[in-house]
Amino acid sequence: MPEIDLEKLFAGDTRTVARAITKVENGTTGAADLMKAVFPQTGKATVIGITGAPGAGKSSLVDKLALHYKDAGERVGIVCIDPSSPFSGGAILGDRIRMATLGLDKNVFIRSMATRGNLGGLSRSTVDAVAILDAAGFDKIIVETVGVGQDEVEIVKTADVSVVVLVPGMGDDIQAIKAGIMEIGDVFVINKADREGVLRTQKELEALLSLAHRPDMWNPPIVRTIATENKGIDDLAAAIESYSCYRHEAAGALQDRKIAVARWRLTELLQEALLEKLLSKNGTRDEIELLAAQIADKHIDPYSAVEQILGN
Amino acid sequence: MPEIDLEKLFAGDTRTVARAITKVENGTTGAADLMKAVFPQTGKATVIGITGAPGAGKSSLVDKLALHYKDAGERVGIVCIDPSSPFSGGAILGDRIRMATLGLDKNVFIRSMATRGNLGGLSRSTVDAVAILDAAGFDKIIVETVGVGQDEVEIVKTADVSVVVLVPGMGDDIQAIKAGIMEIGDVFVINKADREGVLRTQKELEALLSLAHRPDMWNPPIVRTIATENKGIDDLAAAIESYSCYRHEAAGALQDRKIAVARWRLTELLQEALLEKLLSKNGTRDEIELLAAQIADKHIDPYSAVEQILGN
Repeated sequence: MPEIDLEKLFAGDTRTVARAITKVENGTTGAADLMKAVFPQTGKATVIGITGAPGAGKSSLVDKLALHYKDAGERVGIVCIDPSSPFSGGAILGDRIRMATLGLDKNVFIRSMATRGNLGGLSRSTVDAVAILDAAGFDKIIVETVGVGQDEVEIVKTADVSVVVLVPGMGDDIQAIKAGIMEIGDVFVINKADREGVLRTQKELEALLSLAHRPDMWNPPIVRTIATENKGIDDLAAAIESYSCYRHEAAGALQDRKIAVARWRLTELLQEALLEKLLSKNGTRDEIELLAAQIADKHIDPYSAVEQILGN
Repeated sequence: MPEIDLEKLFAGDTRTVARAITKVENGTTGAADLMKAVFPQTGKATVIGITGAPGAGKSSLVDKLALHYKDAGERVGIVCIDPSSPFSGGAILGDRIRMATLGLDKNVFIRSMATRGNLGGLSRSTVDAVAILDAAGFDKIIVETVGVGQDEVEIVKTADVSVVVLVPGMGDDIQAIKAGIMEIGDVFVINKADREGVLRTQKELEALLSLAHRPDMWNPPIVRTIATENKGIDDLAAAIESYSCYRHEAAGALQDRKIAVARWRLTELLQEALLEKLLSKNGTRDEIELLAAQIADKHIDPYSAVEQILGN
């Protein structure tokens, strides 16, 4: 793989951006050096995390929001996190369809991050991809998750503004989800707001929000949208903007969150680096293969296997 | 915390089971020793992983399936994975309601595993909880995920039989989910089958399945259920049973999967052990705190921070 031309990257060249993201995704040699060069150039973009249950219409919402920003003359990057099978490293057909919708040019960039199945590096590579887009001068970066699992919640938490998307009448287990994402939502969206049960969902949400205690005293707004008809998108953009302003003003109150995110990133990177270091030792990979086969056959338990590898 | 009475555990005493799971969840000293003792007693239970989008009615389905097994005289354990906020360590109100529904006794055990927000040990502790239930003589162990993220997919893959739950007409982004979970589904359920669009969902699913290439040549059945009315539960149990039998007969073909799961577990445990080892060194925790604050202030990038900690 050729070196990344940093000058071109910081000038916003999309092909260079794409190559840089591939580099961090693959964790190839030089990825760490690339990120060290990228890091000082970051901090200008507004990073918007969008999460919510599948079927909530997140993709349409993200597309319409991206078009909104594009029409306002801003450059928009979209990073889509997909919980695809770790065995296949699943590619996404949807990307190409969406590119057509968004009318891809220099000002809109879309990239799906699929899992590679090895070092659990999804969160690391996603956060790095966001930093690359930031350094490349994108004004708004939207991080969209397909899943709503642990990794996805962690990633969305690294955003400047977290948007949680719900739909009316999602049934029983939405309650469980709501409880889990209550704390990460800075803005809530009830999409498909022409459906039955909007008022009930809104009331439930308001009740849950009134119980939540945010350290920063922010009162998350609830926006109703019909993404497919482009309704409510302006309101959503305004809500995002208002939290973004609030966040800048209340910078002190949010320092804790920033440090928590930094601690999480550092721990993730540390685990990855420690494992890589171990695997780079002669014979370790073979030993792991051998022990994995023995665990599968129940000749050894995984805990004893770990002790054997680490020489305890 | 008192020692776990292994004799009581293997005899299936539920209070001992609960204590043992808490032990592995907290990662307290002795957890590794406990798991080493537990491991040789495992391998008798059928582990059923259930995943799917929120709103698909998984909880109801799991409850009805558990009752089905209970009525057939089997002991059933339910482990529920919840992607709650890592900050709160979120507890689950739902658990108690469900306990009431299931009529908890010696033969039904339910436990939610929430994230603790530190070492990313959700997958490890879940897999350990399943092993504990297995060793305690539970015949069927159902692992239910609330989220559909990366960790959840990994965990469900460790099951003997993976069930993927869909509902009719979930809209656009269900396609993305489908593509990702296609490979892990051994049995597919279309729940809420009295809703409009069942046939279309079934056709779409059949089309996707016909494209998938399973190494084991299994053709995943599609079962229609209405969990709230207890309809189709027998069919689901039969489908699970048939794959379970197939899997035993085709043991050779599935050895690869077993080894892949063992390799994943080993890698997870290794990362955790390596980080723990590092953190146990004097001053490392303080150094991480200091560096996290510096990263938050953009005085250092995370990659350089990792190098500093590891003394590269």
